[in-house]
Amino acid sequence: MSEYKLFCFKESGNAYKAGLMLELCGADWQAEWVDFFNGATRTDDYKESVNEMGEAPVLIHGDVKLSQSGVILQYLSDRFDRFGPRDEAEKYEVLRWTLFDNHKLTSYTGTYRFLSRWAPSADQAVKDFFHARMIGAWTVLEKRLEDRSFVAGSEPTIADISLCGYLFFRDEVGEDAADWPNTTAWLERIKALPGWSHPYDLLPGGPGDA
Amino acid sequence: MSEYKLFCFKESGNAYKAGLMLELCGADWQAEWVDFFNGATRTDDYKESVNEMGEAPVLIHGDVKLSQSGVILQYLSDRFDRFGPRDEAEKYEVLRWTLFDNHKLTSYTGTYRFLSRWAPSADQAVKDFFHARMIGAWTVLEKRLEDRSFVAGSEPTIADISLCGYLFFRDEVGEDAADWPNTTAWLERIKALPGWSHPYDLLPGGPGDA
Repeated sequence: MSEYKLFCFKESGNAYKAGLMLELCGADWQAEWVDFFNGATRTDDYKESVNEMGEAPVLIHGDVKLSQSGVILQYLSDRFDRFGPRDEAEKYEVLRWTLFDNHKLTSYTGTYRFLSRWAPSADQAVKDFFHARMIGAWTVLEKRLEDRSFVAGSEPTIADISLCGYLFFRDEVGEDAADWPNTTAWLERIKALPGWSHPYDLLPGGPGDA
Repeated sequence: MSEYKLFCFKESGNAYKAGLMLELCGADWQAEWVDFFNGATRTDDYKESVNEMGEAPVLIHGDVKLSQSGVILQYLSDRFDRFGPRDEAEKYEVLRWTLFDNHKLTSYTGTYRFLSRWAPSADQAVKDFFHARMIGAWTVLEKRLEDRSFVAGSEPTIADISLCGYLFFRDEVGEDAADWPNTTAWLERIKALPGWSHPYDLLPGGPGDA
């Protein structure tokens, strides 16, 4: 049995953040596929026994059970002493960009992608609303990366791992890499980290997947 | 001049989280009103000189400038040694509920309230979408508080201060306190903390306010 177990599915950028961190830290881990698209995270059993918030990812490590990707990133950073802040000021910057990601960038991008790819009956006004907010959040990140290699400083931190989660799916939301040059260069730097792989290669999909 | 300065406005539950924490910690602080409804946070000048994310609240403390309410809460908790976790496990719980608040509860509630109160031309489908998600997030919190006095344990932490931010505006989103008994009892416990006051009493409004 592996040391860490991650409840996850490959279409989830939030699950990817956790899986990528495990890989980048060289953790001994295994994936436990969650059948999200058939409602697995919304069952009473899942909420009782895995996560009351009804979400993936969830990380199991001995008696420790953690949800929310930002918490999993923090926990692994503490355990492996990797991708953390270098000083007190950077600690708040890392948290600031992790919160911005959760509150805005991932929230809008993940919802827009879900609605446009997997919810054929979704209202166009709702999709337009999320698309506009997604572009707003991406614009903040693009500007932030104008004069920085990574979001909080010169080295990658868990804030970068959080923010990149949904951005490797850019083609799925109709965005062109060339229109986001700073973000694209930053994603290339993340791809160059030893252990990186794309979410569709890293995490398990459903039994019907190719 | 006060030790802390908070860029804020009274209609913002996020600004309220920061203002409430300053009050509960007995900080020496002053409010700097931000004219959000006339677009003050979206100007180039504000983004350049105050907050690149184009948001309030922002806390100024000497040379330190912080945005994102969750970061401000963490910073003040570190400075005053108040409302922090009691141990390592609680540290992750506090972060987990703060992230849940940012990602879901505040994100959906704040947006729904904004659209239904201040955006007369907002599409009904968009409002319905946010309302449904808001109710989902409130339901998670209501269940969490079934057997707990506060979100992360028996004492209040910054996770409670984060989550309550928009819930003192419940009447404005058409929700009845009686339908959320655990949440209502918890809000009463927060109101009983020395220094508590309602956002409309604590933070400044526009010059035209009564």
